Amino acid sequence: MLLYRLSPEGFYAATTPEDEVRILYSDPFETAPGGWELGRKVDVLAEGLLAPVLPGKIVGVGRNYRDHAAELGNPMPAEPLLFLKAISSVVGPGAPILLPPESERVEFEGEIALVVGSRLRRASAAEARSGVLGVTCACDVTARDLQKKDATFARGKSFDTFCPLGPAIRVRPDLEDLEVATRINGEERQRGHVRDMAWGLVELLVYISRFITLEPGDLVLTGTPAGVGTLQPGDRVEVEVPGVGVLRSPVAKREA
Amino acid sequence: MLLYRLSPEGFYAATTPEDEVRILYSDPFETAPGGWELGRKVDVLAEGLLAPVLPGKIVGVGRNYRDHAAELGNPMPAEPLLFLKAISSVVGPGAPILLPPESERVEFEGEIALVVGSRLRRASAAEARSGVLGVTCACDVTARDLQKKDATFARGKSFDTFCPLGPAIRVRPDLEDLEVATRINGEERQRGHVRDMAWGLVELLVYISRFITLEPGDLVLTGTPAGVGTLQPGDRVEVEVPGVGVLRSPVAKREA
Repeated sequence: MLLYRLSPEGFYAATTPEDEVRILYSDPFETAPGGWELGRKVDVLAEGLLAPVLPGKIVGVGRNYRDHAAELGNPMPAEPLLFLKAISSVVGPGAPILLPPESERVEFEGEIALVVGSRLRRASAAEARSGVLGVTCACDVTARDLQKKDATFARGKSFDTFCPLGPAIRVRPDLEDLEVATRINGEERQRGHVRDMAWGLVELLVYISRFITLEPGDLVLTGTPAGVGTLQPGDRVEVEVPGVGVLRSPVAKREA
Repeated sequence: MLLYRLSPEGFYAATTPEDEVRILYSDPFETAPGGWELGRKVDVLAEGLLAPVLPGKIVGVGRNYRDHAAELGNPMPAEPLLFLKAISSVVGPGAPILLPPESERVEFEGEIALVVGSRLRRASAAEARSGVLGVTCACDVTARDLQKKDATFARGKSFDTFCPLGPAIRVRPDLEDLEVATRINGEERQRGHVRDMAWGLVELLVYISRFITLEPGDLVLTGTPAGVGTLQPGDRVEVEVPGVGVLRSPVAKREA
């Protein structure tokens, strides 16, 4: 089942077993998917899509694919390296990634993003698994030059438009069988499977929730595979998680 | 003028020129203080107080007082060092700071916190100044051992209860004449004036808003003066910003 958030009001809509998309009357962060009440049919393409969630917070994980740590010349940390990304960086599918004048080197990082469905605090593996509403595609856009200056990552990852999300949330997928691919101008640049991760998705949630309480609607960026590279004005970024869809983001210079 | 947020519903109340406290009908993040509509009198002490704001995000500034950078053996950075703290760490006045089993060394950092009143994006100094709703007292509680392990600071600063706020917001204070003092068990341990900061409050907002868009209700932790130290169960922390009040937080061990 896929969950879309429709423009302009932000109503949710869900796919049915008949492959229709219907308005969701229930709050997906209050009611479990089994109990969702659906309404009239909608045409997702005609309505336009927003980011499928406006997260309360965004927790990122650095160096979770061994090949990406290696390409940046970083050793694998003994534990997941957590960071926070400002929620003001979120944009929806189709919205441009704007390159700010403060950075000489903005890079794409295609990722599988977990959308938290219920509060996770010192969660067990079973609690973490059932606390996931679903997954979406994300691009963890990063000003690499600023990230290298500030070990906190806060500045380099939090510019407006630096967190494209979408196009939908895949509800309750198989968390052990997910893949992400990133294409720039149609050419594949990154590909990673959850089995290539140092820490799996459930393991990450168990770990994070020991330190940071995750609330419904929070987002976890689960790391990026090898192949990151710089973005130029005019580039077209596609992040695809099979079963979720393709998140498309054009790239432009931010006007002064 | 002081702004309180009342338990349990989260209604705001404001002080009047007659030193009464009255329920605020207006949304302080929608309507400027001059246009606020006030209602019936309330007894703040009888009602109980919540954290005066539930921030959308918390942006922190490391090493903004030269004496604190020196005591941690850190050079002064050429630019403010920004970090993000999870909003799930916020608690109100009187709520305990809970020491988690994951850290051997939890420290207090008394701070002046800016509460953003209107959106700041690449703000000028004048825009930044008028975009401040007010200031409150904060304790930027930090698991120093985890902060030293993770350069991102995310893990060490984001445990639940690690961001006590309150007791009130001082609305539109003189941003060039504010002071903060921290006492542990009645003994003063930190004292700093905004004039001791490497970057003043308005300067910080101008800087941050180049990288991170600040929204109404966002919080900026403006750095801590020298004198930080560890917390033990049973300690009583007081952070005072004259004109705002005293933020009191008892310290306890988190139960397993």
